[in-house]
Formats: sequence, structure tokens, C-alpha cells
Amino acid sequence: MSTLLFTGNQTFRVEPTAAVPPAPGEVQLQVAYCGVCGTDVHLYHGAMPHRLSLPQVIGHEVSAEIAAIGEGVSGWQVGDRVTVRPLQPGTEDPSDNGQHHIGKNLKFIGIDTPGGMQSHWNVPAHTLHRLPDSLPLTLGAMIEPLAVACHDVRLGRVQAGEYVVVIGGGPIGILIALVARQKGARVLVSEVNAARLELAHSLDLDTVNPSTSDLVAEVERFTSGAMADVVFEVSGVAAGVAAMTQLPRARGRMVMVAIHAEPKPVDLFRVFWRELQLIGVRVYEPEDFEEAIALAESGALPLEELITQVAPLAEAQSVFDAIDRNPAGMKYLLQCS
Amino acid sequence: MSTLLFTGNQTFRVEPTAAVPPAPGEVQLQVAYCGVCGTDVHLYHGAMPHRLSLPQVIGHEVSAEIAAIGEGVSGWQVGDRVTVRPLQPGTEDPSDNGQHHIGKNLKFIGIDTPGGMQSHWNVPAHTLHRLPDSLPLTLGAMIEPLAVACHDVRLGRVQAGEYVVVIGGGPIGILIALVARQKGARVLVSEVNAARLELAHSLDLDTVNPSTSDLVAEVERFTSGAMADVVFEVSGVAAGVAAMTQLPRARGRMVMVAIHAEPKPVDLFRVFWRELQLIGVRVYEPEDFEEAIALAESGALPLEELITQVAPLAEAQSVFDAIDRNPAGMKYLLQCS
Ligand SMILES: NC(=O)c1ccc[n+]([C@@H]2O[C@H](COP(=O)([O-])OP(=O)(O)OC[C@H]3O[C@@H](n4cnc5c(N)ncnc54)[C@H](O)[C@@H]3O)[C@@H](O)[C@H]2O)c1
Ligand SMILES: NC(=O)c1ccc[n+]([C@@H]2O[C@H](COP(=O)([O-])OP(=O)(O)OC[C@H]3O[C@@H](n4cnc5c(N)ncnc54)[C@H](O)[C@@H]3O)[C@@H](O)[C@H]2O)c1
Ligand SMILES: [Zn+2]
Ligand SMILES: [Zn+2]
Repeated sequence: MSTLLFTGNQTFRVEPTAAVPPAPGEVQLQVAYCGVCGTDVHLYHGAMPHRLSLPQVIGHEVSAEIAAIGEGVSGWQVGDRVTVRPLQPGTEDPSDNGQHHIGKNLKFIGIDTPGGMQSHWNVPAHTLHRLPDSLPLTLGAMIEPLAVACHDVRLGRVQAGEYVVVIGGGPIGILIALVARQKGARVLVSEVNAARLELAHSLDLDTVNPSTSDLVAEVERFTSGAMADVVFEVSGVAAGVAAMTQLPRARGRMVMVAIHAEPKPVDLFRVFWRELQLIGVRVYEPEDFEEAIALAESGALPLEELITQVAPLAEAQSVFDAIDRNPAGMKYLLQCS
Repeated sequence: MSTLLFTGNQTFRVEPTAAVPPAPGEVQLQVAYCGVCGTDVHLYHGAMPHRLSLPQVIGHEVSAEIAAIGEGVSGWQVGDRVTVRPLQPGTEDPSDNGQHHIGKNLKFIGIDTPGGMQSHWNVPAHTLHRLPDSLPLTLGAMIEPLAVACHDVRLGRVQAGEYVVVIGGGPIGILIALVARQKGARVLVSEVNAARLELAHSLDLDTVNPSTSDLVAEVERFTSGAMADVVFEVSGVAAGVAAMTQLPRARGRMVMVAIHAEPKPVDLFRVFWRELQLIGVRVYEPEDFEEAIALAESGALPLEELITQVAPLAEAQSVFDAIDRNPAGMKYLLQCS
């Protein structure tokens, strides 16, 4: 039994630990795999220090088996295969508008509270979603980012036959592209990085490099002049925000997936002129997890091809150290037990 | 019979003219009143010179009686009282997405083609909406801006009981506030100008001055912590854009009514964090004119109180010259015949 402790300064320490019995309302998970999220890499680089209690276990993209069941938990059995929706709603605020998944007092498990990069992890039972027996546990660890994509495509109201442009072909952008394509949309991925363009291409996604092609002209060509029904901004850079408003058709939708820490200039004239809509999206709701699990189980998405490396938890330090140096890398999984 | 010609450089000339018979598909209107729109004031100050053919008649907020009927026009009779929806759709572009009112090749009548500040004006019959006999023609000239407000409130999906904040209490902002209130919303108007605050107050609208009060705190108080369901940005200034994202509750809507010529910084983090929606709105569709006419006819809105001055067409120059000096002024009407 071991635990990966993030101690700050891009440093991890692996410690042997004894599993703690689950508190009432919790289950103890034996974690199979935990994916490394972009957010984890940001934490490693020093982001959001006020939200962490160092040394802290991070990680929130897990597949697991239930190892023990706390008092008052029903509907689950030891051995059940599960993934975790890492949201712990807090006291409801009147401004939450009933949206528990983005409530003012929400805690994100794996940042605000200990995460899944350990062999045994206690989580509230309400966070669990059942994984089908047929789904490999490696893919079970990809349900969380896939649920992000399902949420974003759902809130973007993507319909079959629509033209979709995804700005930014990182893990989240590629999953959005795959989910949108699965819905019957015609998808173009805009990405500047050659290795990621190559990966998108290998998944049979149409691609464009906006640093070497005229993006607006390419979208015009791709859509035969109709322009995009939906644009997903998943790059997180100012160039993505600038491109976002240029690509939709009249009444087109722009979905703001990326996290822009600072306000960025937006072409509000174009929002008015073409009656565009910008839709903010954050994490997921339970139905998005259910959809992600069903999609993964169906085998319709090439999820395996997004796994760059599976490494033992003990090698986490070298995995994190290597991630920034490998732009072709997509999903890194840590084997936790 | 006279015509007001805008000759550029903040200058108008009034000319006697002979009425031209209407072309096929057109009607000749005897214009009763033509309102001065903020856009007309911008033109007067030199905006959009490439869209005008000087000397040109401007104006697009009219009430009129039909004076003559062109070939092929049916459903209208001489003497019918009408207003004009000043949109001339052009060839449809694939990117228009069927939205004729904001089509790429749309012409705005009164800017791209001659306007209504003249005693006799020929317009395509498809632009006409019938005015009820009971509606004074002064109010008939306010249907166009009221239709803007109806469009914006409709696209903002304002529901009875919702909290609405209108940023900018100019003519358009006040009309939006009145229409939203009529729908049963609880409306707060944010405005920096004392005279306009006073006017809003006299219409029994709740008001806040964001330069002397903490706007976020005032909205919190007004909504008992729920924050706004819908925020209308109608100020056209960067401070309005900055405020806009701070006021909605989770999944709240922001309606972009104002024309921001330059890109402005937008707090995209907050759009993501609270899953906000930004909805661009431009002009109106036929149903918005019908709703505006029904609302005006119902007498439910204090439209008369928005009329600052009614002046003969011959005095247009002094009206335009005075508008900027009177921040309390709202709607100026030119009597055209
Ligand atoms: N809304 C949510 O709940 C949610 C959830 C997860 C992640 N996110 C955010 O989504 C974003 C994407 O996540 P990710 O893990 O895929 O990040 P990532 O950094 O791996 O992906 C961003 C991609 O954008 C590309 N890019 C950079 N400049 C570009 C440009 N001008 N045009 C097109 N592409 C460009 C980069 O090369 C990179 O591949 C991040 O901002 C992340 O914080 C949001
Ligand atoms: N979407 C459309 O189709 C459409 C149609 C008509 C007008 N418009 C636009 O709507 C906007 C409003 O039109 P209008 O005629 O009422 O203009 P206006 O200039 O008379 O009104 C703007 C108001 O905002 C106030 N204001 C300035 N700074 C403020 C701040 N920080 N907070 C709150 N209020 C502030 C001003 O004092 C003014 O009263 C303009 O940008 C106009 O171009 C859009
Ligand atoms: Zn994640
Ligand atoms: Zn107008």
C-alpha cells in the first residue's frame, strides 16, 4: 500500500501507508489507475497553492475496485468496479441556481481534498459510478476527462450533421472532437503542435494548423461556406479566443471549455453582429459520467490510442518531469495498486 | 413636401422635393414622425461614412400613412397607418443559417439606403407593419426601438419572476427594462448619468449608480443573494463589459445588446466557472415588431414619458446639435409632414 505525496516545488515522494477504514458514508477504494490531468501538471508547476494542503495526494481520474464499505452506504459491494465523479458539493448558495456541480462552496476532490494517486483512497459513496465488467480499468481511468467532453458537447447542443470546430487538440479537445463526431457532427480540429496534429490525424479527424494556414478560409472550405455551428475553445490562449468569434455562422455557438486565468479581448461586435452565443462549461453532471461510461463501453471511441504511457505509481516523479517535454503525449496513467 | 439631407460634417440641409411614385413592390409613405436613433447621432458625428452616399436622407424609426401603392403590392391600402421594419435582406449567404434579419448581405434601410427623415418615403412593402388606429403616431415612431427591446428580451429568454439587471439606461436600456418588467421580471437599471437615473426612477424602475455604489453588492441586495438571471449589456463601455460577468448567478445569461466597435477584455474565467451564457442580439424579426405594436397598443408601457421633444423636420439641425448637450434627453421625434 503506497501513497504519492506532492510536496510542492515539482516534487513527489512515495510513502508506504496503511489503508484507513472508510468513514460513514464513504467507501474505501483500491485504486487501479489514476490519470494525470492537465490540472495535476499545473499543480506540479505551482498553480493554486492556496487550494492544496502540502504534502498532499492529488489526482482525480481513477478506476478502482471497492475495498471496504463505510457505515450507512448502500447499493455497493466490495469488489464493485467504479470510477469517481470528484465533486463534493458544499452548502448551497442562493446564487448557485440549483447547479450543484458548480456551486460556490463545491470542493474538487483531488485538489481541495486528498486525491486518487494512492493505492487506497476513501471517497464519499455519492461520487461513485459503476464501471461495466467489459471495460478495461485503464479506460475506466479515462471516464472523468471523457465526461468533461460529454458535458461540453451536451451544453454546446451539438446535433448530427452540424459543423464543429475544436480549437486546441490537447486531451480535452480531442475527446470533445471524438464525442462530437460520435454524435454525427463533422469535426475539424485546429492545433498548432505538429505531434498533436499527427495524433488527431491518426484518429481520422480533420485538422488544420492555424499558424501555417488561414483558419477562417479553411473553415469556409471545410463547411462549403456555411461556417461552424459550434466552436469549442479548448486552447486556453488569446489566439484561440480571437479565432473563436470568427468561425461561427449566424446564431452559431461558442463553447468556453478552456480556463483563461486573465480576462482576454473578445470581439463583442461579432457576437452582436452575427447573434453568436458563448456558453461557459465546467466539469460535469452525473448524466455526463453515465454517457461517458456508455460511450467507452460501446467501443466506438479510440480511447486506447490516447494512452501515451502507463507507469507504476512509484515512477510518478519521472512521468511528471517528462510530460512537458513530450508534446505528442496525451494521457499518462499511473498504476496505483 | 420636404426632405432632410445629411451632407456630412454634422450638417443637414432641408430641401423641398417632389414625391417619387413607388416602384413595383414598394409603397409611398407619407411619414408622420421619425425618431432620432443613437445610430443617427453616430452618423451625424461621422461614423460609418462608407455606408452612406452623401448627401443622404437618414432615419429609420417612423410612423406613416400609405400615400400610394406600387405595382404588385397587395394587402395594403392608401391611408393605412404603418411603421417600417427597416431591413432589406440581400442574397442569402450559406453562413446566414437562415437568419434573414442578420444576413451577410442585408441592407439597413436609412443607412445603406435612403431613410425616413422626409415627408414622402418609398419603401418595400415587405417592411411594413400595421399600426392600430388607437395608437398615436408619435408612439408609432417608437415601435422600432421597442422592437429592439422585445427582440433582446425574447432572445434573453426572460421569464416572470426572474431578476434582470440592465447595464446602461439609455433609450434602448430603458425600453429593455420596461419590456422585461412587463414580462414579470424584477428589474434593476445600472446607469452613471444622474439625469437618466432620475428618469428611470420616475418610471418606477429600481436603479443603481455603479460609480457611487458597489454594483455587485447592490445586485446581491436586490436579489437577496440569488444574483441576476439575466444581465443586459446596453452601455457600450468597457466598464459595462467588466460588470456584466460579475452579476449573473450560475447558468445566468448575459445579453450583448451594445455595439462594441473594438474587442474588449471579458472575464472568460467567470464564464467558465459559473457556466454563464453570452447571447448576441441584433435588430429584430417580424414577430418582435408585432409584439412591440401589441405592447404599445396595450398602454402598459409609459412610452410617452420617453419622448423628450417633438420638433418639425425643418428644425432637425438644432435637434441634432442639442442632443449631445442634454444627457437627460431620451427620444427626439421629427415631425415629417
Ligand atoms: N471546462 C472544464 O471543466 C475543463 C475541464 C478540463 C480541462 N479544462 C481546460 O481545457 C483546456 C484544455 O485542456 P487540455 O488538458 O487538453 O490542455 P492542453 O494544454 O493539453 O491543450 C491545449 C492545446 O491547445 C493547443 N494550442 C495552443 N495554441 C493554439 C492555437 N492558437 N490554436 C489552436 N490550438 C492551440 C496546444 O498546442 C495544446 O495542444 C485547458 O485550459 C484546461 O484547463 C476545462
Ligand atoms: N443590438 C442592436 O440591434 C442594437 C439596436 C440599437 C442600439 N444598439 C446599441 O445599444 C446601445 C445602447 O443604445 P442607446 O441608444 O440606449 O445608447 P446610449 O448611449 O444613449 O445609452 C448608453 C447608456 O449607458 C450609460 N453608461 C455609460 N457608462 C456606464 C456604466 N459604466 N454603467 C452603466 N451605464 C453606463 C450612459 O450614461 C448611457 O445612458 C448602443 O451601443 C447602441 O449602439 C444595439
Ligand atoms: Zn481532470
Ligand atoms: Zn434605431
